[in-house]
Amino acid sequence: MKIMIYMDYNATTPCDRRVVEEMLPFFSEKFANSSSVYRPAGEARKAVEKARERVASLVGCEPGEIFFTSGGTEADNWAITATALKLRDKGRHIITSQVEHHAVLKTCKALEQRGYEVTYLPVDRFGTVDTETLKKSIRKDTILVTIMHANNEIGTIQPVEEIGSLAKERSVLFHTDGVQTAGKMAINLKNSSVDMFSLSGHKFYGPKGIGALYMKKGVSIPPLIHGGGQEKGRRAGTANVPSIAGMGKAAEIAMEEMAENEIRIKDLRDSLEKKIKESVPDIILNGNPENRLYNTINVCIRYIEGESILLSLDFEDICASSGSACTSGSLEPSHVLLAAGLSHEVAHGSLRLSLGKYNTRQDVDRIASALPGIVERLRQISPYGHDKKE
Amino acid sequence: MKIMIYMDYNATTPCDRRVVEEMLPFFSEKFANSSSVYRPAGEARKAVEKARERVASLVGCEPGEIFFTSGGTEADNWAITATALKLRDKGRHIITSQVEHHAVLKTCKALEQRGYEVTYLPVDRFGTVDTETLKKSIRKDTILVTIMHANNEIGTIQPVEEIGSLAKERSVLFHTDGVQTAGKMAINLKNSSVDMFSLSGHKFYGPKGIGALYMKKGVSIPPLIHGGGQEKGRRAGTANVPSIAGMGKAAEIAMEEMAENEIRIKDLRDSLEKKIKESVPDIILNGNPENRLYNTINVCIRYIEGESILLSLDFEDICASSGSACTSGSLEPSHVLLAAGLSHEVAHGSLRLSLGKYNTRQDVDRIASALPGIVERLRQISPYGHDKKE
Repeated sequence: MKIMIYMDYNATTPCDRRVVEEMLPFFSEKFANSSSVYRPAGEARKAVEKARERVASLVGCEPGEIFFTSGGTEADNWAITATALKLRDKGRHIITSQVEHHAVLKTCKALEQRGYEVTYLPVDRFGTVDTETLKKSIRKDTILVTIMHANNEIGTIQPVEEIGSLAKERSVLFHTDGVQTAGKMAINLKNSSVDMFSLSGHKFYGPKGIGALYMKKGVSIPPLIHGGGQEKGRRAGTANVPSIAGMGKAAEIAMEEMAENEIRIKDLRDSLEKKIKESVPDIILNGNPENRLYNTINVCIRYIEGESILLSLDFEDICASSGSACTSGSLEPSHVLLAAGLSHEVAHGSLRLSLGKYNTRQDVDRIASALPGIVERLRQISPYGHDKKE
Repeated sequence: MKIMIYMDYNATTPCDRRVVEEMLPFFSEKFANSSSVYRPAGEARKAVEKARERVASLVGCEPGEIFFTSGGTEADNWAITATALKLRDKGRHIITSQVEHHAVLKTCKALEQRGYEVTYLPVDRFGTVDTETLKKSIRKDTILVTIMHANNEIGTIQPVEEIGSLAKERSVLFHTDGVQTAGKMAINLKNSSVDMFSLSGHKFYGPKGIGALYMKKGVSIPPLIHGGGQEKGRRAGTANVPSIAGMGKAAEIAMEEMAENEIRIKDLRDSLEKKIKESVPDIILNGNPENRLYNTINVCIRYIEGESILLSLDFEDICASSGSACTSGSLEPSHVLLAAGLSHEVAHGSLRLSLGKYNTRQDVDRIASALPGIVERLRQISPYGHDKKE
């Protein structure tokens, strides 16, 4: 039996062993509710604050600007919904892009049903938002701009600093979904134009079910989840101490190993991308060739369906994706690729390979050698393939 | 050094070792995103569905009626906020009680700021809601009744079946916060009048950061957290597979051991309560003597402050609480005790001892022998104590 190759790190990552080690004492031994008054609760609080410092350090901000949530999705929902609620008397217009994660898009759609108006900015062929169009879209009643830092499907990095500055000029709050960049790239929020930034633990070798929202000092939005006074009264619910500690450890490790991981993973990615380009005909490379996550490959393989490729890869013990894990199984092609101007037919043939720190040269070689045969076989039996040949 | 005695199980519980064992494989090995298409994701999905069956079994419902959340607080927020949003054209009146957990109370307060009207039902000396008053409070524009199953501070169990029937008669939805009963008591939601029921994993030896909302078949409220189509499109965010699996295991263990735990814990609780009554003068027992959680003691110890008792107990390595962990450190006396008719002064002297399955006869004996001395010392130095003596 072959060893499983995992190349879907943008969907989730395995917990680093050191992260699990960090978490373990907090399940059954140091298990106190961190809101209690006795000394063991103080230890739990200490662990939470240590993690907060580590996460703050990862994104270059103050610990007091980090608020733990149940994940990136909650952080996105919170930033958008609570801003909308807070500023509803100032205005009800929100600007986002067509290529956001569903955690942002669906939250915006829900707000539309509640009387808000949302502008979904178009993107160019590479999935990049045009800042000129953004500029023209800001209105007197605009209360929030929310544009992701890097796209989960195609890896395109948005000009968030410029976007934030444009928002700031017009006194509009700026939120960015940083779920795909936190832990991968150096981020310095301190002197940035970003007001709110979402993070997710399980995208950088931390546990699932934990995330955070950065809120710049001075920015204050009401809670999405009300109750006990946890997280300085901004996010209620018993602190998830083990997962918070785990996310903190993951942040620390990410900081320490970021530079070497970037070099090694980018090298593997570039090598795999080159091999695919050389060995698979009729493919279209997606994402911004210049500003793109160093771990992500997204290609449309013409005349076949992404799902068929995935099943064939799975048969060879290779885990890959056609785009976002959250919409797997849906028959719709990627909204990101459609926004980037691809036809339904072409977009249907998307394959995302996202690499991580546990990938090896052998993984790259095995995928590179498996893919051409799979594509050829599928094209032979595909109706689109027949069309092409006829 | 003395061994630490933990008697604050209503605040949180340690993870059962078997729960941690169940979780471990899902951190670094079976770590796939359960929404992905490859086979390892199928394994993760299986684990989630197995947990859903176990949780459903714990509360006597169908697996399809269980939706995982990040905890009890999120479940409460979701049930209340989403019902309010969905039915806002039908009416904007909600009925709850004065003794709810803050996860319910603060959510209701937030809705008041958004144009909803909330009736906070009073309770009797034992903290029990009067169903006659409830009956009179239901109006044409009432859309939701939310009354907790058992109170976290004083243990009083509300007549939820009767409350639900009254709501049903008037076609009003009924939600109950079951965070303190799920895992402790036999619950059968199938034939109950309860439409929605909140659970929390860490209250019955499962992990923190995971909970669930039961939604009766046919009841449908919009998501609180939007995004990917997880949990049948009702709760977005990458499934927290390890914690879900852990909560499932905790549910299974709770079912298996419920009967014997109840007998043993109740016996210890009754014994401790008796000893306290006999050895500490001037105390007031709180909660309903008939319908009360079998693990909870709540007493007001007159002429001293609850916080001072806690510190003294902590000094003897005993973990206890003055009420809810979520409001620890606040100078306000318990809203539950005030609602039950106690004066501010008396309510300030509250002590909650909540027992769990790891407590022993020795724990009971040590607390019973420590408490009278602590109370006597504190009363000697307390200004209230002086008042009393003068």
